Amino acid sequence: MSQSRTLAVDAMGGDHAPDAIIAGLDIAAERQPQAFFLIFGDEARLAPLLGASRRLAGRYELRHCAEIITGDMKPTVGLRLRDSSMRRAIDAVVAGEAQGVVSAGNTGALLALSKIVLKTLKGLDRPAMAATVPCLKGDVVMLDLGLNVVYDARNLVEFALMGIAFARTVLGLPAPSFGLLNIGSEEGKGDDTLRAAAAMLRASPAAKQFYGFVEGHDIAAGTVDVVVTDGFTGNVALKTGEGALKMMADLLRQVFSAGPFAKLGYLFARGALRRLRETLDPNRYNGAVLLGLNGVVVKSHGGTDALGFAHAVEVAMDMLANDFNTYIAEALAAMDQALLSGEAVIQTNG
Amino acid sequence: MSQSRTLAVDAMGGDHAPDAIIAGLDIAAERQPQAFFLIFGDEARLAPLLGASRRLAGRYELRHCAEIITGDMKPTVGLRLRDSSMRRAIDAVVAGEAQGVVSAGNTGALLALSKIVLKTLKGLDRPAMAATVPCLKGDVVMLDLGLNVVYDARNLVEFALMGIAFARTVLGLPAPSFGLLNIGSEEGKGDDTLRAAAAMLRASPAAKQFYGFVEGHDIAAGTVDVVVTDGFTGNVALKTGEGALKMMADLLRQVFSAGPFAKLGYLFARGALRRLRETLDPNRYNGAVLLGLNGVVVKSHGGTDALGFAHAVEVAMDMLANDFNTYIAEALAAMDQALLSGEAVIQTNG
Repeated sequence: MSQSRTLAVDAMGGDHAPDAIIAGLDIAAERQPQAFFLIFGDEARLAPLLGASRRLAGRYELRHCAEIITGDMKPTVGLRLRDSSMRRAIDAVVAGEAQGVVSAGNTGALLALSKIVLKTLKGLDRPAMAATVPCLKGDVVMLDLGLNVVYDARNLVEFALMGIAFARTVLGLPAPSFGLLNIGSEEGKGDDTLRAAAAMLRASPAAKQFYGFVEGHDIAAGTVDVVVTDGFTGNVALKTGEGALKMMADLLRQVFSAGPFAKLGYLFARGALRRLRETLDPNRYNGAVLLGLNGVVVKSHGGTDALGFAHAVEVAMDMLANDFNTYIAEALAAMDQALLSGEAVIQTNG
Repeated sequence: MSQSRTLAVDAMGGDHAPDAIIAGLDIAAERQPQAFFLIFGDEARLAPLLGASRRLAGRYELRHCAEIITGDMKPTVGLRLRDSSMRRAIDAVVAGEAQGVVSAGNTGALLALSKIVLKTLKGLDRPAMAATVPCLKGDVVMLDLGLNVVYDARNLVEFALMGIAFARTVLGLPAPSFGLLNIGSEEGKGDDTLRAAAAMLRASPAAKQFYGFVEGHDIAAGTVDVVVTDGFTGNVALKTGEGALKMMADLLRQVFSAGPFAKLGYLFARGALRRLRETLDPNRYNGAVLLGLNGVVVKSHGGTDALGFAHAVEVAMDMLANDFNTYIAEALAAMDQALLSGEAVIQTNG
């Protein structure tokens, strides 16, 4: 894979932009030798940062943009800024100058711009947002994480196919297992939409990988490789899990500073605790991905540091290397074919 | 408060019944001097256990039941067993012989029986399930946890009022704050139902206690005292948070057995870690409560031990002591009054 791949980078989005973004690209440039970066943002601020990086020399092109979509801007306002670093980065994908875009900027604006400018992949009804989260067995893919508050059974089936494709790419699994998030594992649980989606999945080419319904605790347990749900439930579950882990980390910090014995204990256990921290390091999980668009879109956390942004770049490069969108298009076609013949069988039986 | 209060106890429900149940009552008898227990179950198994408890002497009445609703029984099957320990315990509340019921048995059957036999509190559309969960500031009340997968804005408002009443009782707060669980804190977030519920709450007598929308991470952060949501989202969030905490505990166990230094560290930090475990002890959070029925119903975890069951009994006693249902009825009436006059104002303005 010596083929060069170009990523469009919004260098002005995020709490620590542009410094953390360029520092992240500096790290990514070494890890991803075939990456080329089309960098969008304020030239006066970016040129000195870029000039100081030896690794980035000859690996980027800088394009000046006069506007910035800030974090507190309403997406509808951000959409109107035609010379923003975010907008121009997405435009570069539409123009074929880059194959994907990475931004740590305003989430709402990135979603809206991506959907409007890049447009949804042919054959697909709705894009979805996915990410990997830590679980006892390693990593688990979750989607949708907030794009689709209103949805139907067909959307859930599409999310499942995209989730499988994403898990193949980022987790490197040939046939990832997946489950539909519900409030119980029995067949009758949940609402009509969930039950209809489960029936479609059981009749699909992905049936062998379909575990059935999973519950909230199955996420961290790693019961399946991909947890499929709607955008409301997924967003709440993701943030609830993150909140619980943060609480536990805060309580541990209190515990280990509670008196001389505990402090001594910390000193001895320090190495082991550091490995725990690395296992759950938010930077390892940085980079939510918009799936189902004509181009790869990776959203880094707004508060990301350089390492986190480098990881987001890595996720985008993985998706490009795995020809992500071609795989999804083929999976969708196979699914439709199977559901059509499945209906034929049901009709014959009736 | 020297008044005696009678609780009907399903002694046959739960993985460790009847032993853990009677052992739990033995503990509760000491902690709750004004409690009297009406105990339902298999006399041959219960009589020796009860006879062995000095604390329970003179504090209970045993009633034999020939049937048991097992944990793996379908609720519809359980409903037909008229001489089950669970059914007879609920019947005792309807008959006025007891003011509340505690069971560690089949959740689905307990919900169905309670709704059918006890019936919903007058003026209320739907009951809800609530529990306290750990947060950085202590405890937070969450509801609904699984009863209402289908719901409307009015139901969410009712859940809020019941959640406030429950937080007053179990957390002892005179004016608990509450928030509606959503995928963002901005006013426009979520679906029509959530926005309509927020508008009603802002026009209600509880408006001063209403924080607005909260997100998943606000649960463990303790941003509000009561987190209000629908039964699907609440169930997923509860189990996701529990799963994340369990994962962290498992990882910690691995960390502290990884080599001699870590083990030594554990020895020194043992006391502090024990306090952490006590803070997050599941027994402290045992006892989900069905709110909005004609009688207090507390559901203990199926896998509870004696201490957990004693805690569930304590929750039921607290609710009886605080005249829980009278408070809810008054809050509902005040809410309806305010919303009616609110509508009048809106019409005048239009």
